Amino acid sequence: MRPYEVIKAKRDGRALEPAVIRAFIDGYVKGDVTDYQMSAMTMAIFFRGLDAKELGAWTRAMLESGEVLDLSETPGVKVDKHSTGGVGDKVSLSLAPLAAACGVPVPMISGRGLGHTGGTLDKLESIPGFRVDLSIADYRRLVKDVGACLIGQTATLAPADKKLYALRDVTATVDCIPLIASSIMSKKIAEGIDALVLDVKVGSGAFMKTLDDARTLARTMIGIGSEMGKTVVALLTDMDQPLGRTVGNALEVKEAVEMLRGEAPADYTELTLALTAEMLVLGKRASSLDDARSRLAAAMKSGAAEKKLAEIVKSQGGDPAAIADLSRLPKAKQTIAITAERAGCVIGIDSEAIGLAAMLLGAGREKTSDVIDPGVGFVLEKKVGDPVSVGTTMVTAHVNDDRRFAEVTERVRRAYQIGPAAPPRKPLVLERLS
Amino acid sequence: MRPYEVIKAKRDGRALEPAVIRAFIDGYVKGDVTDYQMSAMTMAIFFRGLDAKELGAWTRAMLESGEVLDLSETPGVKVDKHSTGGVGDKVSLSLAPLAAACGVPVPMISGRGLGHTGGTLDKLESIPGFRVDLSIADYRRLVKDVGACLIGQTATLAPADKKLYALRDVTATVDCIPLIASSIMSKKIAEGIDALVLDVKVGSGAFMKTLDDARTLARTMIGIGSEMGKTVVALLTDMDQPLGRTVGNALEVKEAVEMLRGEAPADYTELTLALTAEMLVLGKRASSLDDARSRLAAAMKSGAAEKKLAEIVKSQGGDPAAIADLSRLPKAKQTIAITAERAGCVIGIDSEAIGLAAMLLGAGREKTSDVIDPGVGFVLEKKVGDPVSVGTTMVTAHVNDDRRFAEVTERVRRAYQIGPAAPPRKPLVLERLS
Repeated sequence: MRPYEVIKAKRDGRALEPAVIRAFIDGYVKGDVTDYQMSAMTMAIFFRGLDAKELGAWTRAMLESGEVLDLSETPGVKVDKHSTGGVGDKVSLSLAPLAAACGVPVPMISGRGLGHTGGTLDKLESIPGFRVDLSIADYRRLVKDVGACLIGQTATLAPADKKLYALRDVTATVDCIPLIASSIMSKKIAEGIDALVLDVKVGSGAFMKTLDDARTLARTMIGIGSEMGKTVVALLTDMDQPLGRTVGNALEVKEAVEMLRGEAPADYTELTLALTAEMLVLGKRASSLDDARSRLAAAMKSGAAEKKLAEIVKSQGGDPAAIADLSRLPKAKQTIAITAERAGCVIGIDSEAIGLAAMLLGAGREKTSDVIDPGVGFVLEKKVGDPVSVGTTMVTAHVNDDRRFAEVTERVRRAYQIGPAAPPRKPLVLERLS
Repeated sequence: MRPYEVIKAKRDGRALEPAVIRAFIDGYVKGDVTDYQMSAMTMAIFFRGLDAKELGAWTRAMLESGEVLDLSETPGVKVDKHSTGGVGDKVSLSLAPLAAACGVPVPMISGRGLGHTGGTLDKLESIPGFRVDLSIADYRRLVKDVGACLIGQTATLAPADKKLYALRDVTATVDCIPLIASSIMSKKIAEGIDALVLDVKVGSGAFMKTLDDARTLARTMIGIGSEMGKTVVALLTDMDQPLGRTVGNALEVKEAVEMLRGEAPADYTELTLALTAEMLVLGKRASSLDDARSRLAAAMKSGAAEKKLAEIVKSQGGDPAAIADLSRLPKAKQTIAITAERAGCVIGIDSEAIGLAAMLLGAGREKTSDVIDPGVGFVLEKKVGDPVSVGTTMVTAHVNDDRRFAEVTERVRRAYQIGPAAPPRKPLVLERLS
């Protein structure tokens, strides 16, 4: 079939054969299928969807457009986690050392993304010396020897996805569940996992606005995993405010270390433990989620988890002393309090608005060429449910360049919704799918 | 709005403001909106449509992407005809001189198209010396002085449509009614018309397969015309076989001249008269369709219509003697009869199959670079309703290169459906919309 006929078939709602999908994606990587044909195709998929068989073929074609890592030299079940992303989400920083400390190898390749705030890679790079641009050979070695390695995407893994994602990003086909699911799964499977835990965020500030959409995305990824022989478990988690108390790269590393010491806020701690417990069960290092919880608690208490983080930092060129002594992490020149202008109770914090305000401080990128300032960001002194009076500090901003601070203050204040009384507490984990 | 936001708005079913559409199309012509963004947009339009206001803005933006001819130096109401195209459709060749002979100025700019058989321009070029590549200045002068001019599309008229059509052609968004309607109307309005008659073909061999689709397309174009201050009348016409008896360029010119002499088959004659009568009424040269019919009959009988055709031919560099003496038109070296293999009655002729067979003889182009052989083609000796016996000549093929003639014969035979009895006769004009 010519590219024209493939687009037309999908447009008209006909199912595409696996070989047709394979040839279309291979043709796209080679340039025989043009960008304008692929963008018409992805828009047709937005409206028509992909059935389970098509989706398997689509994901496999993207996966096999590049290298598929085989980590079989590392014994055990290799498990990674993927999150659909959220402001203040530093779960990977504590989850990877926790899982590795409990014996589950964690191969973790992240995209840098162009979000409001830095991604996992940016947070790691705020640790002095930490390198995320290791070779695939080093990555394989460290997954085996250290038990975890966190690096950036390479050009050799799922190049079709890389090319396609850039196109979707400028043609309004990013928020399309089959395309999201196949993009994530092709990259994750390429990195050499055996199993995967998904954190699908739900809420006004999340990519998936409704529980239904989140459920569909989770089920779609579980289906692709099953098609590909990978076990996938998904937690649908609430996201109506930033996770934990910090937003900003070094600030989030600090909070991650505190989590391993048992000193972090409950929401962040609980989410990390819930996801890591799933990894321990999938990785056959715990017989049940309860058993996993005990092992995780032990690894925190004994200091094994923090020690594992220091080991990861050292193995990737970073300064492990910065973990033991958090004052060695980059710091901003000044802190400025952002106070409440009215009394009441915090009933909501708009994550996206907080993320944008953090970006204005330099904690995230507006353009891919922007350089992140590792020390800046926010400490959210008040979160949903906390009472405030006029003049109460809601947020402590860590600031180097205060030229746009009036705008930052304005955005933070608007992000905080103050109401008469605390809203009912919602559970953090809304649903578990497997 | 950035192109991304415009695509997303349309994708999500939101109506676009005229200024937004204008900026999007202007940006496309300038290259600020890329091909891959426009193809995502046209696919979104395929699914979401364009409402009347959007469609007006879309058409206007395409129209005003180039020169819009003002033919006000020619007195009277300028009227053109547009057909959605069919095999054997030589209506323009007889309609233009008929309308002009009755006093209606006909500004007619045609695309060459890449159909199975030659378009109007190719047919005209089979007249020795006839030129369709006149300048806009010559075109204006001839519409005024001769009363009709038939030329090819120029780069200065509706360049956005030219660029967009090429893109739709490779991204499976050609058969989308709002895009078809705005493409036709932007080109037709650019050529300087005041009113337009549409021939929308309906049938298995036509672009519009159902009466419903044809009606929607016609109503859409009438709506655009009304938005732009142009009166549009549409006839929905049956197309279950090629029009008239000839398929092939010089053969069709010959049949067109015969039509003006009152010697052509009834279907072709009737369709030409029905469409031209509408033009006379729109052009205020007849008080009613009946009055128009009488005037057309008079112009045929007096020889005024044939004389007008000779005048048009002469004014565009062609040999007018080839109209008076049809033997001066290009002829093929040989004629070969294609006979019936079974007895019965012709119940259908697949126009597309006949068109493809004519292309194999050289009457049409497979690639834009192909050169048309003006003398070759078919005379359909039998049409729907005619009885045939084994060995009856169904088609006389006019052939120069007989190397692929076995395939031609095979295709023609398969195009003819033979049944036990004549099917009920259908009216040629199914519906009139205005």
